[in-house]
Amino acid sequence: MLGTGFIADFYISALHGQRSRDRVIMAYSTTPERAKPFAEKHGIPHWTNDLQEAVSHPDVDIVCIGLRNYQHLEAAQAAAKAGKAVMCTKPLARTADEAWEMVQAIESAGVFGGYLEDLVYTPKNLKAAQSVREGAIGRVLWAKSRETHPGPHSPWFWDKSLAGGGALVDLGCHCIEIARNFIGKNVRPVEVMCWADTQVKPIDAEDHAIGLVKYANGAIGQFEVSWAFRGGMDLRDEVMGTEGTIWLNNFLRTGFEMFTAPGQTGYVAEKAESASGWLFPVGDETNDLGYNHMFTDMLDSMEKGKQPLESFYDGYVVNAIMDAAYKSAKTKQWEPIQLKEWRGLPDEAVQVQKEVEYDADHWLLKEEILPDGNRKLLLKVKATGKLVQTETL
Amino acid sequence: MLGTGFIADFYISALHGQRSRDRVIMAYSTTPERAKPFAEKHGIPHWTNDLQEAVSHPDVDIVCIGLRNYQHLEAAQAAAKAGKAVMCTKPLARTADEAWEMVQAIESAGVFGGYLEDLVYTPKNLKAAQSVREGAIGRVLWAKSRETHPGPHSPWFWDKSLAGGGALVDLGCHCIEIARNFIGKNVRPVEVMCWADTQVKPIDAEDHAIGLVKYANGAIGQFEVSWAFRGGMDLRDEVMGTEGTIWLNNFLRTGFEMFTAPGQTGYVAEKAESASGWLFPVGDETNDLGYNHMFTDMLDSMEKGKQPLESFYDGYVVNAIMDAAYKSAKTKQWEPIQLKEWRGLPDEAVQVQKEVEYDADHWLLKEEILPDGNRKLLLKVKATGKLVQTETL
Amino acid sequence: MLGTGFIADFYISALHGQRSRDRVIMAYSTTPERAKPFAEKHGIPHWTNDLQEAVSHPDVDIVCIGLRNYQHLEAAQAAAKAGKAVMCTKPLARTADEAWEMVQAIESAGVFGGYLEDLVYTPKNLKAAQSVREGAIGRVLWAKSRETHPGPHSPWFWDKSLAGGGALVDLGCHCIEIARNFIGKNVRPVEVMCWADTQVKPIDAEDHAIGLVKYANGAIGQFEVSWAFRGGMDLRDEVMGTEGTIWLNNFLRTGFEMFTAPGQTGYVAEKAESASGWLFPVGDETNDLGYNHMFTDMLDSMEKGKQPLESFYDGYVVNAIMDAAYKSAKTKQWEPIQLKEWRGLPDEAVQVQKEVEYDADHWLLKEEILPDGNRKLLLKVKATGKLVQTETL
Amino acid sequence: MLGTGFIADFYISALHGQRSRDRVIMAYSTTPERAKPFAEKHGIPHWTNDLQEAVSHPDVDIVCIGLRNYQHLEAAQAAAKAGKAVMCTKPLARTADEAWEMVQAIESAGVFGGYLEDLVYTPKNLKAAQSVREGAIGRVLWAKSRETHPGPHSPWFWDKSLAGGGALVDLGCHCIEIARNFIGKNVRPVEVMCWADTQVKPIDAEDHAIGLVKYANGAIGQFEVSWAFRGGMDLRDEVMGTEGTIWLNNFLRTGFEMFTAPGQTGYVAEKAESASGWLFPVGDETNDLGYNHMFTDMLDSMEKGKQPLESFYDGYVVNAIMDAAYKSAKTKQWEPIQLKEWRGLPDEAVQVQKEVEYDADHWLLKEEILPDGNRKLLLKVKATGKLVQTETL
Repeated sequence: MLGTGFIADFYISALHGQRSRDRVIMAYSTTPERAKPFAEKHGIPHWTNDLQEAVSHPDVDIVCIGLRNYQHLEAAQAAAKAGKAVMCTKPLARTADEAWEMVQAIESAGVFGGYLEDLVYTPKNLKAAQSVREGAIGRVLWAKSRETHPGPHSPWFWDKSLAGGGALVDLGCHCIEIARNFIGKNVRPVEVMCWADTQVKPIDAEDHAIGLVKYANGAIGQFEVSWAFRGGMDLRDEVMGTEGTIWLNNFLRTGFEMFTAPGQTGYVAEKAESASGWLFPVGDETNDLGYNHMFTDMLDSMEKGKQPLESFYDGYVVNAIMDAAYKSAKTKQWEPIQLKEWRGLPDEAVQVQKEVEYDADHWLLKEEILPDGNRKLLLKVKATGKLVQTETL
Repeated sequence: MLGTGFIADFYISALHGQRSRDRVIMAYSTTPERAKPFAEKHGIPHWTNDLQEAVSHPDVDIVCIGLRNYQHLEAAQAAAKAGKAVMCTKPLARTADEAWEMVQAIESAGVFGGYLEDLVYTPKNLKAAQSVREGAIGRVLWAKSRETHPGPHSPWFWDKSLAGGGALVDLGCHCIEIARNFIGKNVRPVEVMCWADTQVKPIDAEDHAIGLVKYANGAIGQFEVSWAFRGGMDLRDEVMGTEGTIWLNNFLRTGFEMFTAPGQTGYVAEKAESASGWLFPVGDETNDLGYNHMFTDMLDSMEKGKQPLESFYDGYVVNAIMDAAYKSAKTKQWEPIQLKEWRGLPDEAVQVQKEVEYDADHWLLKEEILPDGNRKLLLKVKATGKLVQTETL
Repeated sequence: MLGTGFIADFYISALHGQRSRDRVIMAYSTTPERAKPFAEKHGIPHWTNDLQEAVSHPDVDIVCIGLRNYQHLEAAQAAAKAGKAVMCTKPLARTADEAWEMVQAIESAGVFGGYLEDLVYTPKNLKAAQSVREGAIGRVLWAKSRETHPGPHSPWFWDKSLAGGGALVDLGCHCIEIARNFIGKNVRPVEVMCWADTQVKPIDAEDHAIGLVKYANGAIGQFEVSWAFRGGMDLRDEVMGTEGTIWLNNFLRTGFEMFTAPGQTGYVAEKAESASGWLFPVGDETNDLGYNHMFTDMLDSMEKGKQPLESFYDGYVVNAIMDAAYKSAKTKQWEPIQLKEWRGLPDEAVQVQKEVEYDADHWLLKEEILPDGNRKLLLKVKATGKLVQTETL
Repeated sequence: MLGTGFIADFYISALHGQRSRDRVIMAYSTTPERAKPFAEKHGIPHWTNDLQEAVSHPDVDIVCIGLRNYQHLEAAQAAAKAGKAVMCTKPLARTADEAWEMVQAIESAGVFGGYLEDLVYTPKNLKAAQSVREGAIGRVLWAKSRETHPGPHSPWFWDKSLAGGGALVDLGCHCIEIARNFIGKNVRPVEVMCWADTQVKPIDAEDHAIGLVKYANGAIGQFEVSWAFRGGMDLRDEVMGTEGTIWLNNFLRTGFEMFTAPGQTGYVAEKAESASGWLFPVGDETNDLGYNHMFTDMLDSMEKGKQPLESFYDGYVVNAIMDAAYKSAKTKQWEPIQLKEWRGLPDEAVQVQKEVEYDADHWLLKEEILPDGNRKLLLKVKATGKLVQTETL
């Protein structure tokens, strides 16, 4: 485990959780005083502040990068050079260029590279994506993902040069990849339009951003991210298809509601903005935020020599989309997404037939059951383009 | 009442509702065969197919335009000329130019002009806007409104030239004005970025559109509209402020949930896409969708000689925003909003101070209560711009 | 209007609301100093502390009793004697005996008597009851109503002899009548089992009670009431039928959610237990709690000379059920409900056929679609009583 | 693993789930043709139809009883006799007498005995119970648990003699133990009042039951169970305390909502009553229904030689409560709960002080913030019992 911060705690909770057979055997931190206590807290036998030592330890099968954004590239290169499988936290890098170097590092070394995009692995997202693939909502038209909260815990997140950006790079990477999973990872993201601003915080990076990503089949991915949201952690996804819709809530409304009277108890709520009043805890954060299913996929894939659901290449695509988003926020127009290599389907293969045929002469516009039980049809005459309305029993 | 369609039914349900003292006394339809049965159904003493006759009847105090979009201008001009107060359904017109003619018609005639933007008047929106004004969520950063459903009932909606556009002009007018009410109607909408596409329906107009409206104080209004949504009528608003957030649901999740077993009853659900399974009715549509509060404001304002919450000028602003949105959808860049006249505050008067001072030397970045009860502060040193972190008991 | 307290404010808000043609013309209070300011606040032309004067004023068409429980009987008798129509707030009386005297007073005087059971008239309850009558959920098996909050505002509520009881008589009257409306007001309530206790408050009356009411057709009504609930006002109803279910929430989760940061604003929330954190306002309390629809029914019924949905007799039945509930809480067994007169259907007329026939030889136990799409049937052989299981494509 | 049915599938999904180090090595079924395919499906190396062989296999550390209710006793005795640790599915037995024999079997053999009450282990219930212990809602007054669905899958459930009862024994065992966990497992359940009826199904056992369990400290546990619910699986818990409340939803409203258009897709929904319309899936059923945390506790406890959260004795207490509930349903009065041995606190140790002191002379009745910001106090004078009201700024 490279890194000993907040995310490393979450990762170990998943890796060591329940009756797991996996164990973290090495703790590495760039901060001299943190590796040892972290190792002790989690029962990790070895610890070090030397990156080379950490990735080279013979008992290490896979290196897990839980470091700050600006440290990912160096760590991935070191691990790849040591011939070790790698998993890297999100975002993969600060820019597409850095991300591409990471892709090349593991591919040229021939090692496994997993992208730790946990929110794609929440049980709800996995099951919803499965339903989409099975046709439950028809063709996907729009997939929106929203992550907003009152801002990150550590100072480095707020420093644009260290993090690579602000709320967009921190949270948008999740949202972009969630939408890709619903729309289809084989469909090329073509261009992006993004608004980003620093509305509240005294920082250089953006604390709020909203963007649209257009895919080669006409579908739209949308991200909404902010570090200025008040009310806790808002994690919601929505997908619209031609035959249905999906609404997911991964945090604030998951079926756990608690009122605790203000000021009368010593009770302190976890992860809520206020310690009293109505609170909305998550039952099992490690599982519900996707860590368990993510590491199961990563380690099983590594052992079986296959690609995980989320690979370094996926992380690269996300960085490329974010690069275009940052550019768009400046130029105030749609910007093309620049990919050095597209590994999905060619655009021609994903084109869709929009019209639904009603009969040889008509397209179906809308069908509706009226309050009196009659069926109302709105049709378009193919030959003339005229709209007609019929009502039948 | 000019118009005898779906919306006219809703209007009369509000106007004649409960123990109202108001009565519709004239029914006008452009369709010869509809005025009479409509008048009989609602107990309206007079009916006609002659617009001039309708607006001139001596018992008419106020003319209510519930006609199709392309008929609003002529009707408003006729009413104004007859010296009658006017209320007009949404959108005010097909374009800002048409809308401005309507504004001028009533202003030069010196008659009352109310804009029937019902969704601004839902009890939830009225109360939420009141809370915002009282400071419940601090400064508004973002206000999003969403209206999506499976498409309108009548053929003319789907014809771009008659309606003035597609889902954007039909539904976006609501969303834009709802956001304006939260952000402040005195704050100038400056520019707009819009994506619009025809993803599903065999029509020329857009069936899906998403846009961002930037206001002079940096706040963002967002609209999401579609005629291709499956699942019923989705009417949701969200507002983010520096001190809080508001989530409103006006339709599908309002505390009324019903499961009715498929196929075993003759029961037919109202306004739902399916007649069985889980259904989510609205208790009192006329009240919950704002019609009662809207007409109370309109008629009280007319009687007292004051401006209603929603005036013709507001309708004009909305049309101007939509014009810019359509332009942006084509040019693929942010487009300025062109207003012949801005009646709100000058831009200088709405500028905000972003930074929150912690003490003489620091800006506050974030304050957080840790699980151990300690208080963690992230501060920015004013002089150096450096980020510092402190933890206190 | 007899009474000038909290409920009288609500009643006038409904009676004078929107564009109503009705007006309260007389304010009466037993407290000398309250009638006048109340009248002035609401624009009521006359006020008095003399009951006789209040009910006899020639401009009074209907007397509205909004007094304390122990004052209902005298007021109803006075109004009936003056030949005036009467509406009385809930509960009708402190006991069934008092309630019966009230029924007799209005019936012998031949005047209209409406029971102001507002929660039966919430738009959600009215629409849900209509769906039940139309067969949406089949035969009703169970109807539960819950009303709990942190306790009433005025001291007299807490005094058993003045109020007639505690939380049961204050809140249970609503719950009992809501269940009756779903199960059918023609079906006789037969017996009741009730637990009641004083768990928290330093009073003689119960602050928490739960009870089951058994109806002649085997359906069960359930009430859950408390004055010791923390978290606001909890108003929820559930109905289970053979073909479906209904869940209503009239207060805390109606699609209006607001987070307001603790301590940073001067904002004071209305009707919430805390003034910050997550709050759940109701959009339009007067309408959503049933006052508008209730008074419309009352006044229309009075004018048309027909029975309102809720009559004095209904109030009497509710009091009889509560009398039996109090007895059961003491005897710790089911107690029969004593009605001097049953005006609904005879018990024989409401008996139900439980078994659903599958074919000539079998009753249907359960039908289920398996994950593989097959249909599984559990049947009971009529002749032998044996359970059999079949699976078909 | 003894048993190869529905519950055995769930158990193995948890035991073999994610990266577990545990493995089921023996499959036993009473049905000859089921053990082998079950073993093959789950990669279980051994299978048998001989109970003795199953429990005696040298590689078996713990025997997991997933059999039908009437087979639990024999299996537990066999396992205990073989000196093996045992875990048994819910309900522990058909009656308290059978359950007590099972307790004695494992205790006299000195082996571990875990009670597989999964719903106490849902992440939400575990976290909620933890919050209650930490004082988040004060003293617990009432804990309600509801489990209803359209009826079980296999015929034996519907046979009273094999199952030990109907919906009460099948579902009520969960609800009773969930309430015990909130109220405190050291607090003696004293008496029970239960209504049970066969309202819909052509069976001898009850298909619907509601009951109240009174505890030695005055708290009330409530269970609501049915096999006649339409709409899916309803799993909800509510807890009321003096300082707060908790609402849990473990199934139908957990933040996953999907609309799938009726009849237009081949999509078949899992575990829903209808395959179209609005569906409410659970993200990760195995985890969210408690199986993972349950087996982690069981196996860790066994290995460490400590009692699990849910032991055979807990199962016995539940059976004793259900025995009293069945008796009450017949006698129509509260029935005492007969425990051969009470292992919790004596009743004297759990008595509570109800009154909250305001000052030396007064008890606090209610404190309230008025809309004008004033504080209103309702107090009771200790000496006289008189209620007084004060209002302060």
